[in-house]
Amino acid sequence: MTGKGTAVGGQARRRLRTRQALVSAARELLVEGRGTASIEEITKRAGVGFGSFFNHFPGGKDALFDEALFEVLDGYAAWQRAMAEGLTDPAERFARSFRLTGRMAAAQPDLFAPVLTRGSELLLLERGLRQEALADLRAGVDSGRFDDLPPEVHLMSVGGVLIGLVRVLSIPSAVLDVATVVDRVTEGVLRLLGVPARDAADLVTRPLPALPEEPIAPWAG
Amino acid sequence: MTGKGTAVGGQARRRLRTRQALVSAARELLVEGRGTASIEEITKRAGVGFGSFFNHFPGGKDALFDEALFEVLDGYAAWQRAMAEGLTDPAERFARSFRLTGRMAAAQPDLFAPVLTRGSELLLLERGLRQEALADLRAGVDSGRFDDLPPEVHLMSVGGVLIGLVRVLSIPSAVLDVATVVDRVTEGVLRLLGVPARDAADLVTRPLPALPEEPIAPWAG
Repeated sequence: MTGKGTAVGGQARRRLRTRQALVSAARELLVEGRGTASIEEITKRAGVGFGSFFNHFPGGKDALFDEALFEVLDGYAAWQRAMAEGLTDPAERFARSFRLTGRMAAAQPDLFAPVLTRGSELLLLERGLRQEALADLRAGVDSGRFDDLPPEVHLMSVGGVLIGLVRVLSIPSAVLDVATVVDRVTEGVLRLLGVPARDAADLVTRPLPALPEEPIAPWAG
Repeated sequence: MTGKGTAVGGQARRRLRTRQALVSAARELLVEGRGTASIEEITKRAGVGFGSFFNHFPGGKDALFDEALFEVLDGYAAWQRAMAEGLTDPAERFARSFRLTGRMAAAQPDLFAPVLTRGSELLLLERGLRQEALADLRAGVDSGRFDDLPPEVHLMSVGGVLIGLVRVLSIPSAVLDVATVVDRVTEGVLRLLGVPARDAADLVTRPLPALPEEPIAPWAG
């Protein structure tokens, strides 16, 4: 209402913009497969002053890159949620999610670079993605669709295969047809979870929603 | 034969000793879960002069740590080979190897720290371990025991689960009984590879050779 109030509001907005520019720069670096960089490179890329870095991230670069990674994972989790809408069978939800993720990893490998940089450690980060994946796996165990093991064990197994799949898809020579390889691996993971072989074979033939042509906004940096 | 020859021989031996001391220091760091360190710390730990580092590793620290990791992996591959001796069925060989590795990871987590530090990238290193694992998986595909997929795809799937398993075993709270969890995950991986559920369940009940009480020498650093 007063001139002073507006000035403070403007300052808060500027502060937020600076912070977001730093996180975006880190996200860009992540999708280029770089888990870190010098503060000079980060601030230059963000278009902010070198000195502003420690105002926002007094904990240093690790805190910035963690925040950037969280945003990437949150975007991925939101996409997964949207793609599984309407499906109630935990095995079918899982199959669709895994098949779409494999196709996406092959089509837009840069989006998955952070997965390869941080690897299985990602699966331990207490953010939305881990919680949602654990809830889905627990639903599968509770309904009897998946083997009766702690959801954490299932998560590390299927997450491990996913990371391996993302890596193998990044080597074009090893894989002839992406969709076939992704679906066969998904079928194998369903069997690993405890789904009978016949059901697993059927689930990976179901129609899939179309992939977005452009990278998903919050996730692409 | 001559004084000069002996001096040269002694110099060559000293040179080899220095190099081996550097590699051993890097191996120690690896099993402590550290993928790198300053050259000062490395040479101090190795008990060699700072300046000698670049005589042996002009390419820098990465070349040293790669060499150390190769030695760790070669030791692991040799252990795996010894443990699978006498078994001809590819599925049975795989089951024993996976069950022993899981138990070893739980008993001596330090030995597996490099696995978590480098992650799935390890599976791409063109050394003995990768070649032997691919040969075993190819034998399984050729005999019809495993699904007809490129061995590289199987390797990244089972390697991914192994990395996930090593990580979940490093969190004591998530796992009640190590042997049970390892065997159930092995059973799942056998099904993933294409082994019928009944065979998979049977293979993980077979007796195992005893684990060594001390870490395997070339592998332990």
